[in-house]
Amino acid sequence: MSVNNRQLVLRKRPQGLLAPGDLELTQSTVPDLQEGQALAKVKYLSIDPTMRVWMAVDSYLPAVVIGEVMRAFGFAEIVDSRHPDYKKGDRVTGLTGLQEYVILDGSPRQGFHKVPKIPFVSDTVFLGVLGVNGLTAFFGMELGQPKKGETLVVSAAAGATGSIAGQIGKIQGCRVVGIAGSDDKCEWITKDLGFDAAVNYKHPDWKQKLAAATPNGIDIDFENVGGEIMHAVLDRMNLHGRVILCGLISGYTKGDPGLASFAMALVKRLRIQGFIVLDYASRFTEAATQLGQWKMFGKLKDREMIVEGLEKAPDAINMLFTGANTGKLIVKI
Amino acid sequence: MSVNNRQLVLRKRPQGLLAPGDLELTQSTVPDLQEGQALAKVKYLSIDPTMRVWMAVDSYLPAVVIGEVMRAFGFAEIVDSRHPDYKKGDRVTGLTGLQEYVILDGSPRQGFHKVPKIPFVSDTVFLGVLGVNGLTAFFGMELGQPKKGETLVVSAAAGATGSIAGQIGKIQGCRVVGIAGSDDKCEWITKDLGFDAAVNYKHPDWKQKLAAATPNGIDIDFENVGGEIMHAVLDRMNLHGRVILCGLISGYTKGDPGLASFAMALVKRLRIQGFIVLDYASRFTEAATQLGQWKMFGKLKDREMIVEGLEKAPDAINMLFTGANTGKLIVKI
Repeated sequence: MSVNNRQLVLRKRPQGLLAPGDLELTQSTVPDLQEGQALAKVKYLSIDPTMRVWMAVDSYLPAVVIGEVMRAFGFAEIVDSRHPDYKKGDRVTGLTGLQEYVILDGSPRQGFHKVPKIPFVSDTVFLGVLGVNGLTAFFGMELGQPKKGETLVVSAAAGATGSIAGQIGKIQGCRVVGIAGSDDKCEWITKDLGFDAAVNYKHPDWKQKLAAATPNGIDIDFENVGGEIMHAVLDRMNLHGRVILCGLISGYTKGDPGLASFAMALVKRLRIQGFIVLDYASRFTEAATQLGQWKMFGKLKDREMIVEGLEKAPDAINMLFTGANTGKLIVKI
Repeated sequence: MSVNNRQLVLRKRPQGLLAPGDLELTQSTVPDLQEGQALAKVKYLSIDPTMRVWMAVDSYLPAVVIGEVMRAFGFAEIVDSRHPDYKKGDRVTGLTGLQEYVILDGSPRQGFHKVPKIPFVSDTVFLGVLGVNGLTAFFGMELGQPKKGETLVVSAAAGATGSIAGQIGKIQGCRVVGIAGSDDKCEWITKDLGFDAAVNYKHPDWKQKLAAATPNGIDIDFENVGGEIMHAVLDRMNLHGRVILCGLISGYTKGDPGLASFAMALVKRLRIQGFIVLDYASRFTEAATQLGQWKMFGKLKDREMIVEGLEKAPDAINMLFTGANTGKLIVKI
């Protein structure tokens, strides 16, 4: 029996928002199952911001190849199987792609795993709270190391991941402030989800409202947006705060060079650590002892450039920025 | 006996490089010592990029007040004392300011401490290798958590801090590549300091040379420069790399909005952690169990927006970027 499969195939890498024709709806016939394969009917597709990235560029996964079915997470039910792990009626989540039927081959690349039927719980929960969004919020908040009483700000707070991250923050005893793009969303996250406050970034005075909602500054930024919103949050961060770079959705549909470095940090899971040596004052003796030993044994060499006269200090400062000095620059009085 | 003191006083906050008149050379008479004070003659002044920041804006220290002596680290010798901890002939380092004489009051704000006389070692070492630069390189490299065989890139590598950071990297078994602004500097750090390679960023093909010098990518960026140089380094960072934000000198003399977020991260000692949930695959079950419990007990709420029909998937993706959805967005097939 031949099964007809409708699929959305990537035809063009989008510029800005998706345009008609970037994804093309096509039809194909599902090939006969080979040994080790199973056929699943896709019931639900998860729509995630990261899909826009997958359409455009190589990131933590390679970009979707032009002409292939668009990558997507989904929920599916096995309808036929020649794979020992799957039988008809099994329910799975994984990278189904934007299509009606998917052939499972058991490869880690597809990332399928079986999910249970839970009474009174919708199947779609496996794409949200118990799926990628819940997991992202969970591990992201773990990286944020929230402490009771700290202030957590979540951007895209009414989104699938942000709404869970904020609630986890509440579970962990934080003051939680969400940033979202409509009054309805703000009402949902405060009234229904229990966020302590919400700020609609489309209001002209939203930065003042963010300040009023974070009287003790911000300790953790669960960042989903980037750009101007992230900048305003960073501006209120407390010393030694933590920024969880989870998403930069404000830049996904436009080329924002200011975001490019953060995008690399996200994709490469970099840890960027701001640092001022004065914080280590209590350990200066320890460090200087080690440095002194290295210097004594010739493991550390240095070079000095000495400028004579207090009146030369302004010129000396400028030398730092014109590249005129090598090694340590010193003014001798 | 009245002592004449020449001082450089901040008159104007500089635009770009320092201009004549930003710092004015003035004279004053050193006031008589009060009980608890000591008078020191400044011998050497440390000239550091951070001084340009101190002249312009509040950062990790408040901006220097207009009309006050410009802040600077220095090396000085006690010439008179009514402070129990200091006697004539004692040698100290601390915030002397750009002046010939400084009155020590023993306050932590001045940060003075005594340094020994070491045979065959110049006094200026206490401003460099054994001073702020050495300490900065030491603790910065500690934050970088270098492992044997990893690749460390240091920008402003021929500078006072970078040259030490790179050598510490060598001590710790890293492949060390320096970025500097002249062939002479590159020769110094490779021939004399033992860096494995050096790249002159003023050569037009420097990015290719950086790539050739880092065949296994970059694990640690000891960042002193920011801007285009930092961007090129980030571009070659390996997964889970570490960026030590120590300086952003390329931005100190110009307003570069792309640097502003990193500048905040530096000044506030933020930890910015890029993050992809797939790295946590081995712990998904653990997390899903916790999330499921929270959901069951009503501690996690969610909202779904369900769009019907595979053919609506492209519109659904766009909804994410126009703010049209609240909560989890799903396409039902």
